[in-house]
Amino acid sequence: MSSENASIQMFGIKTPIIREGDDIVQILEKALEESGLVPVDGDIFVLAESAVGTAEGREVKLADITPCRRAKELGDQYGIDPREMELVLQECDEIFGGVPGAALTITKGVLAPNAGIDASNSPEGYVTLLPEDPRKSSENIRHRLEQRYSCRLGVIIGDSRTQPLRLGCSGIALGVSGFVPVEDARGTNDIYGKPLRITYKAVADNLVSAAELIMGEAGERVPCVLVRGAPVSMVNESPEMPTISMEGCMYFGNVIRGRADNKCTGKND
Amino acid sequence: MSSENASIQMFGIKTPIIREGDDIVQILEKALEESGLVPVDGDIFVLAESAVGTAEGREVKLADITPCRRAKELGDQYGIDPREMELVLQECDEIFGGVPGAALTITKGVLAPNAGIDASNSPEGYVTLLPEDPRKSSENIRHRLEQRYSCRLGVIIGDSRTQPLRLGCSGIALGVSGFVPVEDARGTNDIYGKPLRITYKAVADNLVSAAELIMGEAGERVPCVLVRGAPVSMVNESPEMPTISMEGCMYFGNVIRGRADNKCTGKND
Repeated sequence: MSSENASIQMFGIKTPIIREGDDIVQILEKALEESGLVPVDGDIFVLAESAVGTAEGREVKLADITPCRRAKELGDQYGIDPREMELVLQECDEIFGGVPGAALTITKGVLAPNAGIDASNSPEGYVTLLPEDPRKSSENIRHRLEQRYSCRLGVIIGDSRTQPLRLGCSGIALGVSGFVPVEDARGTNDIYGKPLRITYKAVADNLVSAAELIMGEAGERVPCVLVRGAPVSMVNESPEMPTISMEGCMYFGNVIRGRADNKCTGKND
Repeated sequence: MSSENASIQMFGIKTPIIREGDDIVQILEKALEESGLVPVDGDIFVLAESAVGTAEGREVKLADITPCRRAKELGDQYGIDPREMELVLQECDEIFGGVPGAALTITKGVLAPNAGIDASNSPEGYVTLLPEDPRKSSENIRHRLEQRYSCRLGVIIGDSRTQPLRLGCSGIALGVSGFVPVEDARGTNDIYGKPLRITYKAVADNLVSAAELIMGEAGERVPCVLVRGAPVSMVNESPEMPTISMEGCMYFGNVIRGRADNKCTGKND
């Protein structure tokens, strides 16, 4: 993990539009072949959740959804299509507020506006839900890619998020396989030999943010970025994304007072 | 800005320990020469705020600081050295809560724990304040580098931040020069030709997050990363980092209710 002359390369992998039922690994293999890229040990594949979700059949036709009373109320409150709000309620673990256009939820353990449901890059009248189990998806894809290319790889299913009081989207890792997503730097020292105060590095999130420089949010059809040379710790497993509690979070720790008022379970009433 | 076969390279620039009064551009020039790297049009330099702040004489000896009453109270409340808390109060625009070890502030327009004051990578008994004016620092450095290498460059002064409910630090841009820090994707379409819902890309923040993959937080002495090939929009100015209001922020919009209780102006009473 030395940073002496460290360098990283990132390659955007352009693909055809990915549709329900597509085999995303086959699509990647073909795209890699066309680009002349051959994966090597330590390469990390960052995949857009929308592409993975679509391939896994997570596109939902809004016309098929009947919103419950609460979905109608909340949709009204946040200016969200009640049918989409219904899906938000079904998908999320918890919902605790929002702003116009976005209900703030925790979904699959991650803070996600509108339960991560995305209308962009879905056909007209459809939305795409997050992959059912991003960690498992990343693991399946990694195993198949590793077998195909006979090397040790990492895979991330990534998404976009805003940060507090910032304009614009950064990256967030929903599920990872093959490397350590958050590096624990406790026990290491600063340039003066003093123990570090900032102790964790969000390696997986940073990889997604880096990949988003190439991926874009728009119709660029680059649902995958291959990152080469990143100083990550490879492991032959799919670590859970470590989380912190609301109480331990700098932003939520003692500033959320209204949470209990807005909280609902996310289940239909 | 096509992403066809887009690729990005990042190079860590290793330097000696940077001390007060050092000329950071001279240090970079020497380090680049030793690494054999020659900047080209469109290269972005991501610089750690601690290195820039140190060179600019922003190291403060804690023994020279006398905390006011409020600094003692808040230091006590959040478990922060009252002398450092005094500096937090002097540096920040606003403070509105915190968790053990971190007072949550807005400083130079940016959400920053402890006003961005850093004890890591400072000599024993010292802390380093944020650069006085990160935007101006980035502009000065860019102008000198552009003159030296006769090409158009971008410069970012970057820092580390946690994200809500996430473990580990990502990157944030405090000041930029030479390129557009947040890309406005409104008017572009998704892969199905529909207008995009997510409309802004945090390009500068993502570049810092990418750089942090190499920089690390520890004693790696890589205070600079050169990013080559990033699809950014170069401009011959130093754009302000666009901000959003608390009311418009998904996280702060309607979940912070206790803010008024904890709010103080950040000035000594």
